[in-house]
Amino acid sequence: MGPHPAVAAIRLVVRRVLHDILDEHTRNPGEHSRSPVGPAGPGRIPEAPREREPAPLVLVACSGGADSMALASALAFEAPRLGVRAGGVTVDHGLQAGSDLRAAEVTLRLRGLGLDPVESVAVTVGRDGGPEAAARDARYVALDAAAERHGAAAVLLGHTRDDQAETVLLGLARGSGIRSLSGMAAVSGAAGRYRRPFLRLDRQTARKACMVQSLPVWDDPHNTDPAYTRSRLRHEGLPALEKALGKGVVEALARTAQLSRDDADALDAWAGRAEAGVRDADGRLECAGLHALPPAVRRRVLRRAAIDAGAPAGSLFARHIEEIDRLITGWRGQGAINLPGRVVVRRQGGRLVIRQG
Amino acid sequence: MGPHPAVAAIRLVVRRVLHDILDEHTRNPGEHSRSPVGPAGPGRIPEAPREREPAPLVLVACSGGADSMALASALAFEAPRLGVRAGGVTVDHGLQAGSDLRAAEVTLRLRGLGLDPVESVAVTVGRDGGPEAAARDARYVALDAAAERHGAAAVLLGHTRDDQAETVLLGLARGSGIRSLSGMAAVSGAAGRYRRPFLRLDRQTARKACMVQSLPVWDDPHNTDPAYTRSRLRHEGLPALEKALGKGVVEALARTAQLSRDDADALDAWAGRAEAGVRDADGRLECAGLHALPPAVRRRVLRRAAIDAGAPAGSLFARHIEEIDRLITGWRGQGAINLPGRVVVRRQGGRLVIRQG
Repeated sequence: MGPHPAVAAIRLVVRRVLHDILDEHTRNPGEHSRSPVGPAGPGRIPEAPREREPAPLVLVACSGGADSMALASALAFEAPRLGVRAGGVTVDHGLQAGSDLRAAEVTLRLRGLGLDPVESVAVTVGRDGGPEAAARDARYVALDAAAERHGAAAVLLGHTRDDQAETVLLGLARGSGIRSLSGMAAVSGAAGRYRRPFLRLDRQTARKACMVQSLPVWDDPHNTDPAYTRSRLRHEGLPALEKALGKGVVEALARTAQLSRDDADALDAWAGRAEAGVRDADGRLECAGLHALPPAVRRRVLRRAAIDAGAPAGSLFARHIEEIDRLITGWRGQGAINLPGRVVVRRQGGRLVIRQG
Repeated sequence: MGPHPAVAAIRLVVRRVLHDILDEHTRNPGEHSRSPVGPAGPGRIPEAPREREPAPLVLVACSGGADSMALASALAFEAPRLGVRAGGVTVDHGLQAGSDLRAAEVTLRLRGLGLDPVESVAVTVGRDGGPEAAARDARYVALDAAAERHGAAAVLLGHTRDDQAETVLLGLARGSGIRSLSGMAAVSGAAGRYRRPFLRLDRQTARKACMVQSLPVWDDPHNTDPAYTRSRLRHEGLPALEKALGKGVVEALARTAQLSRDDADALDAWAGRAEAGVRDADGRLECAGLHALPPAVRRRVLRRAAIDAGAPAGSLFARHIEEIDRLITGWRGQGAINLPGRVVVRRQGGRLVIRQG
């Protein structure tokens, strides 16, 4: 008798991702085992080329919740069968009393699954961008550092299709276009470090897999705290939407993410090529050339130019770009436009002048 | 003292649209007063060119609900000031007992506002695509016919920003990509016949404008009937989403519609150009050329090719296109793919053969 269908499902998607990682490792041995951009650590001695690369190490980022515990269990099962070393990292955000004890508990559970190395990393969460964004930023910094420290080829993350649907709705609420609808990528980070094997799997399957494997899981009280936008979305917004639109909403949102991502990539590529064609000899943007571009491409060129000039991407909203666009499509001699990051845009002699003031 | 802010708001957006219509009418006199494609009516005698075009006629499509009654009142106020003739049409869908009486009542109210001509048109609603789609199809056929009959330059529709937000969510539930997120266009139909002046105005403003002008409005019981998807969305889904994500959701959804529409237009244009480049001398699609295109563009080329071969656009889903795409990006000798409309796709000698079986 084979494993429970839920366990078979989580193992299958992890196996596929490990195969991808191995393929890349074989093609580019050693590429992942060091940071492609970061400096060498203190005391790090350059190694001589070796005859044969050691088995690559794959880490799982585990909060102790059902999704990442299921992921850890599947990694622990599949990795040795494919000649991959498997380890785990848990991040102690220090936001709740006793979080250090819980982190210690999670490391014990990960070791119990046979993962090695396993470590707990304590971080200090700032305030930038709100509590959820600040926690996420601190977490990724810690995971990046852990991956560097252990020379990991990849870090697996337990985000499910349900998380993806929530992310798409959060992006929709920003109303800033299809890039914000594209959710989380299956592969992201420097040199594709982060992998999300569960992105097409629903949360229910991960929970079920933990249950049938008798894995104890920890329910983060933040996940049900209505003070958090994502929690309200999960427990009220999305269920109401499913009631109105039918059960397929989560799948439809996840599919929208994938399609939007491809569309946004294609349009960004177009904008990159178009930009070169609308710059004059001095590198300034020519309004006539911009006017001839499709609005979707022109807006992207303008956005890139504003960011290049120093406007912070996160503070640059659709309405800012619309205002710049009116210098091209609705020119009636209007004055300079002030953007975040003290960037000023004005139209002069048929050119856009974009600079930090 | 000027009008109430809500009345000023509805008049302003209608005035802008009437200006647009007048501009186009002046540039292309007579273009709108006859169907650009339809046959001449029975007994219609070709007219000799006249010295001066008569004032263009603009019709309002009015259900008697708050949105379209507000629109009718603004049209009745603004049209004479701009030298535009204003009329109204109400469609009797025959779906509820007494709908004929209500339609007669709406025509009286429209005449009371000073609109002329005013008519009520009875339609027979079929079943294709569900009750909402069938009613909509029948309505537009009737409105097209009324516009032709009266030689109208445009037909105004009362869709608000709230309707737009609902339409985006309905598109999101299909999960079929950004075209389905682009909602309703401000200008649509043959020769831009349909105009939606209220698309950036919220429903509350339209209701308020009716109230302060003491306009009686009719509340369609379908709008609160939970048997209808849109009604569930309006009364449960969207409010729950606003509760989770904040009050700006409706505006964000409407903005997403506009951005998605521009993006989808740009990508469709790209796909149109790309298609010519990947056809061989016999007009068949070359797999190598398709493979080199960005996924977003390739999928659009494949979708167009399937529709050209006879697959009905409405039955062609993202998963169908993905399956064709695997003949290009995941070729392992797989067999023919069957699409709706008896269209069969196979890969032969590095080419895609797409034809109706």
